[in-house]
Parts: sequence; C-alpha cells; structure tokens
Amino acid sequence: MTLHVAFTPAGLGPQESAGRVVFVIDVLRATTTICAALHHGARAVIPCDTPDEAVRMAQTLGSDVLLAGERQALPIPGFHLGNSPREMTREAVSGKLLALATTNGTRALLSVNGAAHVYAAAAVNLTVAAARARQAVEEGQGVLVLCAGREGAFALDDAYTAGRFLLKAFGPDPALACNDAARASLVLAGSLGAAWTTVFSRTRAAADLVASDLAADIAVAGTEDAFPVLPELRDRRLTIPAA
Amino acid sequence: MTLHVAFTPAGLGPQESAGRVVFVIDVLRATTTICAALHHGARAVIPCDTPDEAVRMAQTLGSDVLLAGERQALPIPGFHLGNSPREMTREAVSGKLLALATTNGTRALLSVNGAAHVYAAAAVNLTVAAARARQAVEEGQGVLVLCAGREGAFALDDAYTAGRFLLKAFGPDPALACNDAARASLVLAGSLGAAWTTVFSRTRAAADLVASDLAADIAVAGTEDAFPVLPELRDRRLTIPAA
Repeated sequence: MTLHVAFTPAGLGPQESAGRVVFVIDVLRATTTICAALHHGARAVIPCDTPDEAVRMAQTLGSDVLLAGERQALPIPGFHLGNSPREMTREAVSGKLLALATTNGTRALLSVNGAAHVYAAAAVNLTVAAARARQAVEEGQGVLVLCAGREGAFALDDAYTAGRFLLKAFGPDPALACNDAARASLVLAGSLGAAWTTVFSRTRAAADLVASDLAADIAVAGTEDAFPVLPELRDRRLTIPAA
Repeated sequence: MTLHVAFTPAGLGPQESAGRVVFVIDVLRATTTICAALHHGARAVIPCDTPDEAVRMAQTLGSDVLLAGERQALPIPGFHLGNSPREMTREAVSGKLLALATTNGTRALLSVNGAAHVYAAAAVNLTVAAARARQAVEEGQGVLVLCAGREGAFALDDAYTAGRFLLKAFGPDPALACNDAARASLVLAGSLGAAWTTVFSRTRAAADLVASDLAADIAVAGTEDAFPVLPELRDRRLTIPAA
C-alpha cells in the first residue's frame, strides 16, 4: 500500500493514478464548491475543461443544466453561477445539474486516468474523505491525493489541505510507503497549525479572492466538515454515491 | 523584489525566469557534482540534455572533454565518469571540460529562459550562493530558485535545500513577496531541522542511491560548504566567474 501526493497534475507519473483511489483537492475553490452544491441537493456536477465545453454540455443535456464556473476567479459572462461555494444554496441548485468550468480544479479532475475511484476532497468534507482513504488502505488499495495547484504550479492551500487530509486519515507518521510530496504535505500540515483560514489567507489563491471581492469564500472553504458529502466522479459526473 | 521557488521546471510560468537571478538545485546529485568538479579545477561543465548530446558535444570540442553523467543513477556505458561528486577529484577533472548528462539537473539548467544570471546551487555551496541571492535582492533583482525535482515531480531533497538556501539568504520570514512554493520551502527547512543527511536519507532520491550502492554520495551532498564555488551558466557552460 502506498500513499502518494502530487502537487500538480503535471507532476503525476503516467501510471501514477492507475488502480488507485484518488482524491482531487482544489480547496480554493472548486472542490469546496462541488461539495457545497451536492450537499445542497444538486443532482450532479459535470466538470468541464473550458467555459465553451460547459455551454456545449448544457445544450446537449437540456434545460435543467446550470452553467457555473470562473475565469481568473470571476464569474463567466452569461453563466448562471460563479465558482463560489456561497452561491451553491439549496434554492439555487437543488435538483439541478451543474456544468462547472474552472481554471484548475475541474481540469485536475479530468486529468486522472485509470483510477479505481476518483473523489473531490476539501476541508469542508475532510472527515468523510479521510475515512474513505483509510478504508481504501485497509482494503489494500493505494491512495493518491492530487492537488490542482495553480496554473501548473504549486499552491500552498492545496498542499496544506492534502497534509491535513493525510493527518486525519493516517496520523502524522503513516506506516505506509509515502512519496516525497506526501511527506512534505504532512510536514506543512503539522507545522502550519490547524487554523484553516489563517493558513489560506497567506496564499496566492486567497490574495486573488480578496482582490476580486470574494474574501468571504476563504472562511467558507476553511469551515471543516461544513458540507460532509463525498462527491465521486463516474461517467464524467460528480455525484454522491448511494450509501 | 520577489522571491520565487519552483518545485519542478514544469511548474515555472512562461515568463517566471525572465530577468531574474536564478539558482538551480538538484542536490542529489547534479548541482553537487558540478560544484565538486569546478572546485577541483575543471575548466567548465557543459550541461547536456541527453547522453547522445554529450557525445556529440565531445566530438565537436575535442579530446580534452570528459563524458560524465547518469541514467537511473548509474554511470553511462562508455562514459569517463558517472554523476557522483566523489568521482570529481582533482586528478580526474583538473583542466578538463566535462559534458554532463543527467536525468533531472542538467535539464533543469537548460530549461531556464531569459534570466539575468543562472547559477548552480546545493548544500556544498550554500553560503556563497545565498550571499549572491542577497546581493541580487539588494540590487533590486528578483530571485528564482528552480528545483530540478524528479522526472517532473516534487523532490523533497531539492525543496528542503531551497528552503535552507532562502533561510540562509533572507532569514525565516523574508520581507519580500514570496510565492507559495517559497513559503512552503521555508516551512520545510524550518521544520525538518538542520541535519542535511538525515533529511536527505528519507527521500526517494536517496533510496535510489542506496539501491545503486551510491549511499556515500548522500553524505558528500550533505556537507555544507564543502565546495564553496558558485558555478554560473553562460554560453551553455558552467564556470566559476572571475572574482
């Protein structure tokens, strides 16, 4: 059994996701927003590579599809929703399909190949996601945490969240074969403390949200277990698996 | 003035090295070996993308060129030297040109574009490299530390060395605009302690060296300031700039 973290999709080896149980993290904000939408009754979230793809997806699937997403943190003109977890209210999303296009998170979800399972993870579903990772290891499966990062580069918010996730699931010194990034994420989580929003606030992603008048999203993303669902990607849709 | 770290060449933005003073780190082992070779009198080290390119380079430049490098940590058949700093003795390299092909480090050196200066850094030249970085910032230039990483993925040995380098140059909390990776590397360096070889020994790169019977290289790479030279890459050659 092995525990791997990749800090960016580009850092993933060609076979590194094959057969593993994969958790994709884009904590500011895509995977937080996906949890919020499904927790509040959305039927499914369809991750899209580009806004154009989201539009085509909506045309194919019909009228109950909401277009959602961001470019440079801001809502996309003509779309129903942005990429803010605060927009994913029950009133807005219950019973709906969402076609979601974001710069990093949805692309990271789509970059995974040949995994046994693919889930969306964040602080808002930390406990339930960590429990699933523990179960996977108990059943003899490898775990991969894939951080979305930021335009191909390392993002501290995602790396810290990966470390908090591994800490929650396996403790500070897992008796498992960890790759270098898994060890580093555990060090970051152990050193930076448990105050999610304090850590987030020192990251580039948070600075961009503040600059776009979206600072309130940081507090939502840092509310541990606020949306305790485990979105699973299957047949190109994120849904909550039946219990 | 900004302080950037990239954990892999792939994580570098298209303009991120432009105009900066760049320090490339592949501590296990390429940049350590480059320092050893120049410290022991090699005239220059020519970083090569592949063993074939090293052979072509030697054919072009003539008989005093030594072929050096590794594939999967091991010496390349037909080459004069491997990629071990222990091979770079004065007897072996003094007065020679070396054409060096390694999997990660030489490629990282060649991936930098448009920088003001490009240097090779490691633990063995930490103090002199950190002093150069401090000077760059004092003169108003941005600094970029580029970790070679490992086949496109994060390598803890390089990230830790980047943090030690920034700590040495600027202290634990630089009054400079740091990117997320710079902050993370400072946390890693601050948390993992000052024992180079202890930290190195927990990395994948070290495990591979041990498996190839090259464990003694880890202790050499972890000997701070053992080879206090500052190799600069210019016109495709690494040399020690005239004082």
